[in-house]
Amino acid sequence: MSDRGDILQTTRAFPAKEVERWDAQHDVVIVGHGGAGAAAAIEAARAGADVVVLERMSGGGGTTALSTGVCYFGGGTPIQKACGFEDSVPAMLDFVRLAAGRGCDEARIRLFCEGSVEHFDWFRRLGVEFKESYTDEKTTHPFTDDCLHFSGNELVHPFVEHAKPAPRGHKPARPGEAGAYLMQILVRATEEAGAKTLYDCRARRLVQTESGRVAGVVATRDGKTIFIQARRGVVLCAGGFIMNEGMLAKHAPMLLRCNYKAGSAGDDGAGILMGMGSGADVINMSEGLVLNAYYPPGSHAKGVIVNAQGQRFVNEDAYIGRASDAMLYKADGKAWLIVDNEIYGKTQVPHRLAAVEDNFADLEKALALPAGELVHTVDFYNRHAARGEDPLFQKAKPYLRPLSTPPYAALDCTTEGSIYGALTLGGLATTATGHVLDAQNKIVAGLFAAGRNAAGLCREGRTYASGLSIADATFFGRIAGRAAAAASS
Amino acid sequence: MSDRGDILQTTRAFPAKEVERWDAQHDVVIVGHGGAGAAAAIEAARAGADVVVLERMSGGGGTTALSTGVCYFGGGTPIQKACGFEDSVPAMLDFVRLAAGRGCDEARIRLFCEGSVEHFDWFRRLGVEFKESYTDEKTTHPFTDDCLHFSGNELVHPFVEHAKPAPRGHKPARPGEAGAYLMQILVRATEEAGAKTLYDCRARRLVQTESGRVAGVVATRDGKTIFIQARRGVVLCAGGFIMNEGMLAKHAPMLLRCNYKAGSAGDDGAGILMGMGSGADVINMSEGLVLNAYYPPGSHAKGVIVNAQGQRFVNEDAYIGRASDAMLYKADGKAWLIVDNEIYGKTQVPHRLAAVEDNFADLEKALALPAGELVHTVDFYNRHAARGEDPLFQKAKPYLRPLSTPPYAALDCTTEGSIYGALTLGGLATTATGHVLDAQNKIVAGLFAAGRNAAGLCREGRTYASGLSIADATFFGRIAGRAAAAASS
Repeated sequence: MSDRGDILQTTRAFPAKEVERWDAQHDVVIVGHGGAGAAAAIEAARAGADVVVLERMSGGGGTTALSTGVCYFGGGTPIQKACGFEDSVPAMLDFVRLAAGRGCDEARIRLFCEGSVEHFDWFRRLGVEFKESYTDEKTTHPFTDDCLHFSGNELVHPFVEHAKPAPRGHKPARPGEAGAYLMQILVRATEEAGAKTLYDCRARRLVQTESGRVAGVVATRDGKTIFIQARRGVVLCAGGFIMNEGMLAKHAPMLLRCNYKAGSAGDDGAGILMGMGSGADVINMSEGLVLNAYYPPGSHAKGVIVNAQGQRFVNEDAYIGRASDAMLYKADGKAWLIVDNEIYGKTQVPHRLAAVEDNFADLEKALALPAGELVHTVDFYNRHAARGEDPLFQKAKPYLRPLSTPPYAALDCTTEGSIYGALTLGGLATTATGHVLDAQNKIVAGLFAAGRNAAGLCREGRTYASGLSIADATFFGRIAGRAAAAASS
Repeated sequence: MSDRGDILQTTRAFPAKEVERWDAQHDVVIVGHGGAGAAAAIEAARAGADVVVLERMSGGGGTTALSTGVCYFGGGTPIQKACGFEDSVPAMLDFVRLAAGRGCDEARIRLFCEGSVEHFDWFRRLGVEFKESYTDEKTTHPFTDDCLHFSGNELVHPFVEHAKPAPRGHKPARPGEAGAYLMQILVRATEEAGAKTLYDCRARRLVQTESGRVAGVVATRDGKTIFIQARRGVVLCAGGFIMNEGMLAKHAPMLLRCNYKAGSAGDDGAGILMGMGSGADVINMSEGLVLNAYYPPGSHAKGVIVNAQGQRFVNEDAYIGRASDAMLYKADGKAWLIVDNEIYGKTQVPHRLAAVEDNFADLEKALALPAGELVHTVDFYNRHAARGEDPLFQKAKPYLRPLSTPPYAALDCTTEGSIYGALTLGGLATTATGHVLDAQNKIVAGLFAAGRNAAGLCREGRTYASGLSIADATFFGRIAGRAAAAASS
């Protein structure tokens, strides 16, 4: 072990020829023990590689452990079948292609959809329990131990016109948030597969040969700097950068307006910076998922969301990420959800009541909206909703009814007055098989990435569905782990 | 000279120790002979450095030569004074801070505003002629040889409430587009200052020492690969990346929807990639300036711009870049400018007439907008415009009058049916003095950048003003040139 603190002043790759001796030697070194890192470790170890996982925290889990645990599976999973839903790979492909958004990668989408049932089985074989139950509540995740639900824009304009809908959000059979449960199993499976884990160990730089091959990692542990050789490959699974305000300012300044960072302390971009330090390209860095939890209750989708002009600007039955994105980007963070007494319910993430009045004229006055505009908006909406129509935004029929039972309330969905969660969707450029790419789209030999450390399956919050991050991280984490184990040493 | 074609397969910096011999040696090597490169070359040469400018085209000019030539000067220029306008550094600071947008750099803004009058004088001393004349036409640039005009959002909500307006767009005294004239002078001045120019010479990679210092450039010329040493520094002034579809897809996918790339063939990101190859950080990569030229004629700002819902979404008197940005991002590229017969005029960049009707009910039908919404929008607008008010978007009084003289026309401003120009506003991270930064905000020794090769003064198209790119490129090009000349060898 060495204690040369000066070498930690940069994240540029450390020259291999300057490594005096390796403190440890493995085939595959995985950085980060969240969903992606665990999946990579399990598969690499099962493929026969000598694997170590470096985790800066005192235990595995990462951001996945803080999540709802919802995972996006489809194409005909046993749960879908048991609950009476038909799904197919082509139908899932149609939807995931839309959900992945601008700049998405067709090869990645194909692998993901074609392998989804197998990936579900892999989860089950690890011991993750799923209940054969479906809930039709419009929600971000079932609060019970129920499993299957529509977790994205499957039923929503303009997705529903282009892809046969099926519920694909699968929550493990635990009430409330199930991410910690899911990660307990993945962490245990990491150890059972024979991968070593090194906790309280912070990866700082990659080690790179003169020919450009990544050969290991410089890390710190117990105040010491250590050099860990990766004979076959390094897999970066260290999360996104929502906790790094400097990186947000440089790459995604709009996300700075979000007041709740949906991540763990580890999502500070360290893995992305390490990758960049070896010559890797970073892409899609401005994009993120924005979340203003105006539902559940699902009845809130029967309300209307208006901007500072009193205009509607999104179909309110859209997935929360889509509607929240519109609130931030289209309405500049000035938005209110208007509900009547019948559909009003308390949101899980409490929203301030900006105003409650007996009629819309008073309500628009209380909100200081331009006189007459909210009145017009609701009048137009009500007239068409009574006929089951939404000519402006094609909200689906189940959510169309006139707002007609006073009092009327405005829930504060402004960036100043409500909670905007955010996570990042940009990161290292990779192939579908997890190889990291440089700016010429050439592979950085010996380097792999998965999870939010990479720009993955989903490139836009405005098309996203719940469960896609965990599914992406674990699915492509597995592939990256196998690719690293198979790399020539 | 060497002809090792294999070394051109990457833009990663070439190891200095592998350079067998330098084909040429200079103090300062400047890549690109547009506005930024010429300014850098003039100042570096005047400071006594031995300077060479490498330009891939057969002559200098770059993208600046293709532009209107408008340059943003203020704080009390001789032209402003001669035309009777008061301006001050504090007033300019107030405005430029807003115009620079999110993530802008206060140090850069201060230098720019405090040095603006001197920079104007520098232009004049080079021989650039400006007429002491002002035009109050709302335009992107005077089509005559007139000089001074309001070229941004100075008079526009929400800028006008926060900064005392002054016209700061200065066009050189040539009719039409004056960029070529401007660049003729800057190119001539480059030579007069004693800088060498090497045309038809394409810079491909930086040369970097093991300690990280940039020491030169690998270039190609006449089919040969040449190594050019930079004893003091390399200044990258090779433009943006609007011509590189791969980079747009990775970093700014929305700009792919723009069907006119506002740049020269050189704006393919080559200089940005070279910088990245030396470990430099790239920032603000998703941002660009979007231009749908719905004015001039300035009378068009008296119309209303509506989206696919028939709603207004921007003040129509906004600078073209601001309104166009809203058309693309807020209206998803579905927008129409509605005018009446009195204010209709032909736009310089012709717009298709999507519909012409005698009343708004027929017009909304012809545009397939939701029945009643355009009628409501115009009714609301007209009622308030008659009183000189715009409660929705605070359009300024000179542009407020009811649309009341039939027939009424809708100009097609959709991404499918009209021209959306675009240029990029992301690039290498730099200090205000032009030093290129890595991801840890540390200086890459020996490397400088200016113009669109860097993320410069302006970070957002939605806050931009005409003339800021040329002003930024030349102002900070000068500073970078001096910094490179002063760097220790």
